[in-house]
Order: sequence, then structure tokens, then C-alpha cells
Amino acid sequence: MTDSWAAFGADLHIEPVGAGLRSGLMNALRDAVRTGRLTPGTRLPSSRTLAADLGIARNTVADAYAELVAEGWLTARQGSGTRVAQRATAAGATREARSRPVRRRPTHNLMPGSPDVSSFPRAEWLKAARRALASAPDAAFGYDDPRGRAELRTALADYLARARGVYADPERIVICSGFVHGLSLMGKVLRRRKVRATAVESYGLDIHWNLLTEAGLRTPCLPVDALGARTGELAQAQGVGAVLLTPAHQFPTGVPLHPDRRAAAVDWARSSGGLILEDDYDGEFRYDRQPVGALQGLDPESVVHMGTASKSLAPGLRLGWMVLPEALVEEVCDVRGGPEWMSSTPDQLTLAEFMGSGAYDRHVRAMRLRYRRRRDQLVEALAERAPDVRVSGIAAGLHAVLELPEGTEGPVVQAATWQGLALERLSRFRHRDAPSGREGLVIGYGTPSESGWAGALDALCRVLP
Amino acid sequence: MTDSWAAFGADLHIEPVGAGLRSGLMNALRDAVRTGRLTPGTRLPSSRTLAADLGIARNTVADAYAELVAEGWLTARQGSGTRVAQRATAAGATREARSRPVRRRPTHNLMPGSPDVSSFPRAEWLKAARRALASAPDAAFGYDDPRGRAELRTALADYLARARGVYADPERIVICSGFVHGLSLMGKVLRRRKVRATAVESYGLDIHWNLLTEAGLRTPCLPVDALGARTGELAQAQGVGAVLLTPAHQFPTGVPLHPDRRAAAVDWARSSGGLILEDDYDGEFRYDRQPVGALQGLDPESVVHMGTASKSLAPGLRLGWMVLPEALVEEVCDVRGGPEWMSSTPDQLTLAEFMGSGAYDRHVRAMRLRYRRRRDQLVEALAERAPDVRVSGIAAGLHAVLELPEGTEGPVVQAATWQGLALERLSRFRHRDAPSGREGLVIGYGTPSESGWAGALDALCRVLP
Repeated sequence: MTDSWAAFGADLHIEPVGAGLRSGLMNALRDAVRTGRLTPGTRLPSSRTLAADLGIARNTVADAYAELVAEGWLTARQGSGTRVAQRATAAGATREARSRPVRRRPTHNLMPGSPDVSSFPRAEWLKAARRALASAPDAAFGYDDPRGRAELRTALADYLARARGVYADPERIVICSGFVHGLSLMGKVLRRRKVRATAVESYGLDIHWNLLTEAGLRTPCLPVDALGARTGELAQAQGVGAVLLTPAHQFPTGVPLHPDRRAAAVDWARSSGGLILEDDYDGEFRYDRQPVGALQGLDPESVVHMGTASKSLAPGLRLGWMVLPEALVEEVCDVRGGPEWMSSTPDQLTLAEFMGSGAYDRHVRAMRLRYRRRRDQLVEALAERAPDVRVSGIAAGLHAVLELPEGTEGPVVQAATWQGLALERLSRFRHRDAPSGREGLVIGYGTPSESGWAGALDALCRVLP
Repeated sequence: MTDSWAAFGADLHIEPVGAGLRSGLMNALRDAVRTGRLTPGTRLPSSRTLAADLGIARNTVADAYAELVAEGWLTARQGSGTRVAQRATAAGATREARSRPVRRRPTHNLMPGSPDVSSFPRAEWLKAARRALASAPDAAFGYDDPRGRAELRTALADYLARARGVYADPERIVICSGFVHGLSLMGKVLRRRKVRATAVESYGLDIHWNLLTEAGLRTPCLPVDALGARTGELAQAQGVGAVLLTPAHQFPTGVPLHPDRRAAAVDWARSSGGLILEDDYDGEFRYDRQPVGALQGLDPESVVHMGTASKSLAPGLRLGWMVLPEALVEEVCDVRGGPEWMSSTPDQLTLAEFMGSGAYDRHVRAMRLRYRRRRDQLVEALAERAPDVRVSGIAAGLHAVLELPEGTEGPVVQAATWQGLALERLSRFRHRDAPSGREGLVIGYGTPSESGWAGALDALCRVLP
């Protein structure tokens, strides 16, 4: 065991090829540069380190470096060490990662489903990360409780009880990587329980429906009207063991679930033993009054409350939560798998600190003001510039439905595409079993940055009839 | 729309109940404390904020607060606001999250599979996070490329090419949440390709085998001997379309795959169109010489190289990577799903910065010294205190196999349990189809903290024959 092969410096995997140590090393280095294994600008280990690592004399390495500098493969400069020369080889030049070839980025983005990510509170988040990492126990960096860190479950229980009226014992909270992950876990749990169908709303997201279908569940739909989903029809539905709802703010039509319909859903769940999956994706954002409390508060043993940091903070965090009926906690952990399937613990601890310190409340309140202002500006601009277009739904969330005069949806979407304005038509969110409905657009006014918002709104007004 | 419901302060979901605003508010607050929705110590919004949120007069809230203070439900102190009184209710007292009831934490932990998490470089990691978040484009916080951030794929390509001899174009790298996630993706891809079986090594981890089984693949085993897995037998195997190997350091027996066996595996893959899944879990940690380069370098179109930050940094990060044959990139992305299934982007950017700045190399080198010292101490202690016990395998990784005299494995494991010393017996890792083999222990000398190591080693020596 040579004593030096664990010294400090950069690692370089290199195997001298051919006869002679010095020329063998030179061949290997040339080859690594030629094939792009070593890219232009890469700093090589010091001759002392590499010599120690390879178990050869330092002078051999120093000589090889010097010759390769002379040949133009490497550069050596005082203070910056020996590096691969910038005169990029063909192979090396292609090493930079390209972005996936996606459709051209739109000039204006009003696609629903995203918050204003330019407002992510970077400094506050880092501050929380610093405090969280400083006080984290060592075990937090290891394989851990797949339900999620106790710190985060405690902070969430406090927040959800206080702000959303959720009955949220930390013992029944499970952290997941966003709503889609939580829903896929629930799909597996329902399938294990021999549930054959999960009712969904007649307007919603096909990725959610497809997840349930992939889990082996049928997804019959409940009609959505001005009072929300017609949950009264659940009583007649055949083989339906669960229902997926957006009670606080129906996605995308924008209405809250009427109190009678809330009661009907809970009655159905209680009498049939069914489960309600409550997608509380933007429950924090209501602008005309205090948000309606979570449905889960009505019956914590029948409702799975699911929330996410994707709308309130940023989708990039991939953090969400489920508040489960007590009897379901073990089942959800079972289908999830072991600690290999947990979410990043530093992120969990950071969110716990962010919530516990009040920074989450402050951020939500600041964003509420901002989104509310944008929604007001949208309503005003339409009244002035497109009086035939009506905004439907309550003053809440990050998106609004614009009802269009009959026959205008197609031309408007076409014009938007030409203008580089990304938006979605309402029919995009209609369940395949639902009768065709009114024409409209779903406008994600939460999506643009503050600086991009005015231009996006103007572009929208220009394409409307 | 009241102008004040989006003011700053904490959110409190409360619905006044009964007749009279003040008494209704008091009832609602009492109820929230009684049922544990508001826990002792919770700070309430200021009377001004809550009044604005509820659209009632400030004095009404202030009066309600004052009466509840008089009744002992709340406390009010200059500078700390109004809080729920500490005289905890029964319901409130149970709000703190408990840890999952697990088996008693051992006094000494020598279980394999974890690095020394007490050495996680918290300060360096935070420094990288600060730089990464400062320079991140806004889009990095939104839904993003499910393959992973280009910054991280670029940094990994440079590192893996330089340190592990991997042919690593960033375009063929996919970020995942650790090895198990990557393997489960590969299981789905293989199943889609109608592969019926994946050969595995006769010693390994049952969670890996079970993942493949759940994906619908049989897992016949290749015998492992002193030269590694007998890959020559692949040529005779029926219906085997892939093989899972640990070439750099067989887990757990600790031998590297012999050059002839490496060649045999690649020959088989080329001639049969099969795939090699290379689990490079601890390839950075070799103590006697430079690590053997990755198998992938021999044939990048037949080998899926899989690595992880779980051993080199911390399992809690849940970050791993796959370097794929070009033809597989799209298929892996397909089975993975959309951007909802990506890994945390702030973490990805932080790791990219951590690697690019050289901090990763420095950390690996420092840990290499530390683990190497522990392994030396283990070998020395055994020579002195348990001369009948032989350490087998190369000087590498975070674990060692201790070969025990026949008939002693059972008593040793029993004694360890009594002493609060956690370790694993070798047979725990034997494939069910493998013939029973030698007796031994798998000692994770990487697992303890620096301060816990000496005690753990001493405890181990005390239970050995």
C-alpha cells in the first residue's frame, strides 16, 4: 500500500499506455484530451499528486507535463496550475450540455400550472438552509424515515392546522416529492385495496387521470358546474371507491366546492367507506376573503389532504405532503418503499425551518398581494380592451378562465401562437367522457415574472376578440 | 374585495361560530386550542391583521384576545405578541412528531451501506448552495428537464471522465434520486424491451433483486469467486438480457472484477445485444492503488454506468446518476415521466457547483484518508486481538468482509446483539439460489462517526472468537 495514494488534490484516472513511463503517461494524457475525456480548461493534479497516485517519480510526471505544454496540449501558468489547453479538440468542444430540444420558448408565457418562479425567495431560503444545516443531527444526512423528517412534519402540522383548518397530527403526515408523487402512491394503495375506480372532476389534468389509469383504476368523471363537482352523483356511481377533488378552487374552472357538495362528498365517503383525495394545490391564494378551510377538517378519517410547495414556493423543490387518515399511514409507507425513496433531507429541514421561522407565511402573503394585483389588472384590461370576454371563477389562485364568444376559441389560440404567446384552451382540460362545453382560455397569470407580466397581458389583449 | 385581506402577518384560518362577532371569535379560538389545531406557544396574528383578514373591527379582535388572556387560553407579552398559553391541552401536547418506533438504536453501528454522515461537509455544501442559487436562472426553480440540470450533467461528465474513466457525454447522463431509483427505471426499460431476466451476482442486496423482480424480471445469479462474478457463464444463460455487476468492488465480498471477466462481460453484451448495469457505488474509494476505471469505458454502448452521491457525500441528498448508451436515453426518460419526477433543482445546482469548484474532489480525498486509516486499524486490531479472523477483499470501499472460523458466525452475531453492536452476517447478502458458503461478517467501518469509531472497533474485537 503506497502511502501517498490518498493525498489531497484532484482525482485523475489515467493509465499509462505503451512502453516507458513518461511516454506512456503522455500517450494516455493526449488520448484523454483527444477523446474529450479531459475537456479544455480542466485543471490537472499537480505533478506531485499525480506521481503519488500513480506510484511513479515526480520528475517523470513533471517532464511529461512540460513536453505536453511544449506540444500545445496543456498550458502551465503560475498560480493556476497545469490545464488542458483551450484550443479545443473536436470531441472536447461538444462536451457542454445542451438543453433538450424543446419547442421554441414563447415570448410571453401564460401557461397555467406554475407560480412566478422569478420570485423564489433565494436569500430567505438560503438563510433557512444555513440554520437548518447548522442544527441538523448527523443522522439527518443518512438513510432516514421514509415518511419524512419529524421537523418538517411538525412544522407542516402547525401550519396546515393554523392556515388551512386541517386536522394535522404529524404522525399522519407523509412527505412526498410533490402532488403527482403523492397521487401515484394513492393509486397504488387504492389498487391494493381492490378499488376499481376513482371518480374525477370533468375538468382537470390528464396527467393525474393517466396516473390513476396506469395504477389500474377507471376514472369516471363527475360533471363540474358553477357550484363545483356534482358530488351528489357519487351515491349512484358503480364501483367507485375514491374521488379526486379540488375543493378550494376547482382546477381549472375556478369555482369553490359549494358547502352542500362538500357535505355530500363527506356523506358519501362515510356511508360507503370511500376516500376523498383533496388536491389543495393553491388553497393559500384567495383574494376576496379568507380561504375556505380544507375539506379534510370535516372528516380527517375519510379525506387525504394533499398539498405542495410547487405553487407557494417553487416546483423545482419537489416537495409536497399528504395528511392521511390514520389507517392509511402504514399502507402509504408500504407502497412507497424504503428510505431510498425519501425526499432530500437537507431540503426537508430547510422547508421546516422556513415554515417555523415565519418566512413561509411572509412569502405567501407577499405573493398573494402580487397575484391579486395581477388578477385585478387582468380583469380591468379585459373590461377595457375585450369587453366580450368574461372572467369566470372566484378571485383566487394563479390562473383564471376567460370565457370566449362562441366560435372564437380556435382563432384566438391560433393568433396567440403566431404572436409567441403561450396559453391553454379550456377544452384541453376536459375529461374525454365529458360533453363538450363552453369555449375559453385558461390564463396562468401567476407564471410570468414581474417584469414580464405587463407585456404578457398586453399580448393577451391583442389576440382577444 | 376587502383591501386588507392580503396584508402581511401570519395566516390563521378561523371561522367565528355562534351569535355575536366577539363571542363567535372567542368560541372559534377556544375550539382551535382545545382540539389542538393551535398548539401551545403558537403566535397569533396581531389584532390588526386578523381583523383585516376577517373583515371585522380591530377592537372586536383585541377584546376577544384580551378576554381569552384573562381566561388563561392565551398569553400576551410586550414584544412577543399574543400566543397560545403553554398550559398545554391534552390534544396539543401530542402534536410533536415522534420518531417511527424502530428497533432500539444500537450503541455501536457497523452496518454496511452508509458513509460516515457526521463528516458531511456542511459548510462547504452551503457555500456551494449560495453560489449556485445566486447564479441560477429563474427557470431553474420551475418544472425542468427531467434528465436533470445541464449544469450538473456537465460537471458530472467532467468528473466521471477524469476520475472514473467513464465516457460521459452530458447528453447521455440522466440524474436520478440515487441508485435504487435508477435501477427501478432500468427495470421498467428492460421489461418494455421484453427482457425476461437480469443476471445478478450471487452476493448482493436483496432490495436490488426485489426491484427487478417487481418489474417482472427473473434474477438468476452468477457465482462470485475470488476473481469476481463468473461472467463467462452469461454466454450459456437462457433468456438473460442484462446483468447487474459491481465491477470496481464486488458488494459485499470486496473483490474487483478480474480483467478477463470484464472482457467476458463486454463480449457477451456485444454479441448478444445484452446490457451491463454497472453499480459503481464506491468506485472512488480505493486505498492500495488508483481505482480501476469504470467498465463503461470499455463499451459505452453496452454499459449503463450508475453512480451516487450516497457513499461519497450523504444518502440524505438522494442524488445519483446514470450514464446511458445513447440509444437508451429517450427510453429512460419515457419510463421516468414528466418534470414532476425530476430531482430537486436547487440540490442539483448545488452539487454541480460543489463538483465544479473542486470541493467534491477535496471531500473524497479527505474521506479516502479517513476510511483508509480505519481499515488499517481494523486489520491491525484483528491481527492482534482475533488472529483467527481474516479480512478478505481488496483495500477499498467502506466495508470489509471478516471470514470467521466454521461454526462461529451464529455465536458472534448473538454476542454482538447483546452488546448493542449492529453488524451484518455475510449470509444475509447471499442470493437464494446460491449454494451456502463460508461464514463471515460484513463490517461497515465507514458508518460510525470519527468519535464513535474506536469504541465500535473495540466492541467488535470483544465479540470475535
